[in-house]
Amino acid sequence: MKLKLERSFIREILEHTDKNTISFAGGLPDISLFPQKALQESAYKALEEPEALQYGRSTGYEPLKEQIATLYNKQGFPTERENIIITSGSQQALDIICRYHAAEGIAIEQPSYVGALNIFKLNNMQVNPVALDESGIDTEEFKKALSSSKLAYLIPDFQNPSGGCYSQSSREKVAKALKQSGGILIEDSPYSELYFEKREKSISQQLPEQSYHLGSFSKVLAPALRIGWIRASKELLEPLIAYKEIMDLHTSTITQRVVSQYLKNAAGYESHLQKLREEYHNKMLHFTKQLDRHLPNFEYTTPKGGMFIYGRLKGVNTMQLVQLAIKCGVVFVPGSVFGGAEDEIRFNFTNSSFEEIEEGLKKLKSHLCTDLFRGSFYLANRIC
Amino acid sequence: MKLKLERSFIREILEHTDKNTISFAGGLPDISLFPQKALQESAYKALEEPEALQYGRSTGYEPLKEQIATLYNKQGFPTERENIIITSGSQQALDIICRYHAAEGIAIEQPSYVGALNIFKLNNMQVNPVALDESGIDTEEFKKALSSSKLAYLIPDFQNPSGGCYSQSSREKVAKALKQSGGILIEDSPYSELYFEKREKSISQQLPEQSYHLGSFSKVLAPALRIGWIRASKELLEPLIAYKEIMDLHTSTITQRVVSQYLKNAAGYESHLQKLREEYHNKMLHFTKQLDRHLPNFEYTTPKGGMFIYGRLKGVNTMQLVQLAIKCGVVFVPGSVFGGAEDEIRFNFTNSSFEEIEEGLKKLKSHLCTDLFRGSFYLANRIC
Repeated sequence: MKLKLERSFIREILEHTDKNTISFAGGLPDISLFPQKALQESAYKALEEPEALQYGRSTGYEPLKEQIATLYNKQGFPTERENIIITSGSQQALDIICRYHAAEGIAIEQPSYVGALNIFKLNNMQVNPVALDESGIDTEEFKKALSSSKLAYLIPDFQNPSGGCYSQSSREKVAKALKQSGGILIEDSPYSELYFEKREKSISQQLPEQSYHLGSFSKVLAPALRIGWIRASKELLEPLIAYKEIMDLHTSTITQRVVSQYLKNAAGYESHLQKLREEYHNKMLHFTKQLDRHLPNFEYTTPKGGMFIYGRLKGVNTMQLVQLAIKCGVVFVPGSVFGGAEDEIRFNFTNSSFEEIEEGLKKLKSHLCTDLFRGSFYLANRIC
Repeated sequence: MKLKLERSFIREILEHTDKNTISFAGGLPDISLFPQKALQESAYKALEEPEALQYGRSTGYEPLKEQIATLYNKQGFPTERENIIITSGSQQALDIICRYHAAEGIAIEQPSYVGALNIFKLNNMQVNPVALDESGIDTEEFKKALSSSKLAYLIPDFQNPSGGCYSQSSREKVAKALKQSGGILIEDSPYSELYFEKREKSISQQLPEQSYHLGSFSKVLAPALRIGWIRASKELLEPLIAYKEIMDLHTSTITQRVVSQYLKNAAGYESHLQKLREEYHNKMLHFTKQLDRHLPNFEYTTPKGGMFIYGRLKGVNTMQLVQLAIKCGVVFVPGSVFGGAEDEIRFNFTNSSFEEIEEGLKKLKSHLCTDLFRGSFYLANRIC
């Protein structure tokens, strides 16, 4: 029987909204912060050589692999070019790994990234969800899940959708549990550069022989590049090369060379990252201020980085709310989509402008009535 | 148990040869014929807008889908934008289709494209090989194969590796057999624009509701773009969209926009194609002349387009030959790699220069001794 797969709620929504919709839904970067001029110049230079247009290697463009290895080494994570495979976004990176590990047990966070949940389904993985807590993941539950899971899929930095960041102690406990079980960590790190105050060390760094560390330029440079990668030991990478080759031969050498050209200006990249961190920090502060003003009963934890604010609109079915809201031109993602509770919401705070954030939250408010007795909301069936 | 996949002989060879190796191995276009300046200018223009850097739709960039539909309509194959999904090369196109049809029976040509054979293996397809003949495929054998095959994978235009082109009558018979069986055709057409004299109509055109037609810009513009597509009925395409989304969200919008920008000059594209056809025709004629001079006993059919000359070095184990030849700086692909006979060879004639073609074939000759009695070759264990 054929596997019937459903598209992601978020991507379907994104494709069916128009330019006037205020979207707190997708994990979209702020379009005004793309280093557009620098990437345009990089593309022009990269395409100066006809070799840039020929077939490339399945593991990726060698100079880019070298540059990515250098980024790891700077963070104190010893890495060689041979520890890197370039993929068509980190979405493909995860699919390659799961296709190789098809049907195995995998411990995951609950709630977790929808695109990953779909990959697990497609590859017939046996999913073992573990609750998150204020310091990261419930480590006792995690240990139990590892007893029936060869793999663990975690997003320790500014988790999607919860926005949480694992504490140092939680990271150590996770690493210890994996060392004991002999399991393999898949650490998804698209947001790790988007910290507001400080960078936490990756868990993979403590488990260099037992981890796939996934990186991406989608959130820090531009999603349209579709450049992600897997960092792993040579032993873990080796069998994946054939999968990558069979799945799409290799990732576009053009976009790989664009990034490689761009990264030659290391100081420029660093100052771009610094700017992103500051701007996103300001946006997050603005978002929470507007939340506190317009949806004062929305319970959330202030994120320390990343792109999302996750929380609870006590008593409100947020799937019903979004169906009303979309008609008035504002969208978000209900927590239930990620395996969260029915009254939870994930807000993306990076994509919209300051004005749109205020306007969007005001619109949301118009669909809610306050239950003064309980101090909670209920849905108002109003027309906007 | 994990599926152990082997990498393609061709891609492994390509990655382990240096710049001085004369390669008749991969299906590489002539690097000097890439429209490098035009693509460079197109990239610069495409990246003028920051929107080009944002996430895109899973089915592809709408204007490019429209342009591809127009190309079909010009060839008399009625096609709308909604009949197209853009993929990361036609390699991914085939993988998406086979992943959806996992474990089904599939009739294939023998010999066939190695990258496709690997996809069938990865997706656990039940492969039913059918012999090729001088007019295309053995249609009686093909009908039999369809009795246990829901799908048929064919490369009717300048087949890989045989170089053959199906006659009009053979195409009609194939279409009729599929209509009778209710099977679905996967028609792989990366070389169809590279005809020397005339274009044959695609088989899919006779089976618009029962076919996936795969196209690619890899052979006609540049492989590094990684832009391919599937053309199919909306009913057949619909379930594939979720697969595409889960596998890599979407193909790079940057390279899609580069192609879209390039195609705006329709006359420029047509004259580029015309130039490719003429230059490749000349190269093929040069290659066959040198073959007749240096390897007079090599039996082959002169191709009418595409990139390959396939034939037989009677009595010679060509896998052993290539292992000697590679040490002297010349490579080709033994027929056995494609499921062909042990004494067969596929030569790519597009990648090397006129001088390299002559030099490479001379080098090959030096490894062969002529058996005057039998009029065949045998391997000489010479050192170059």
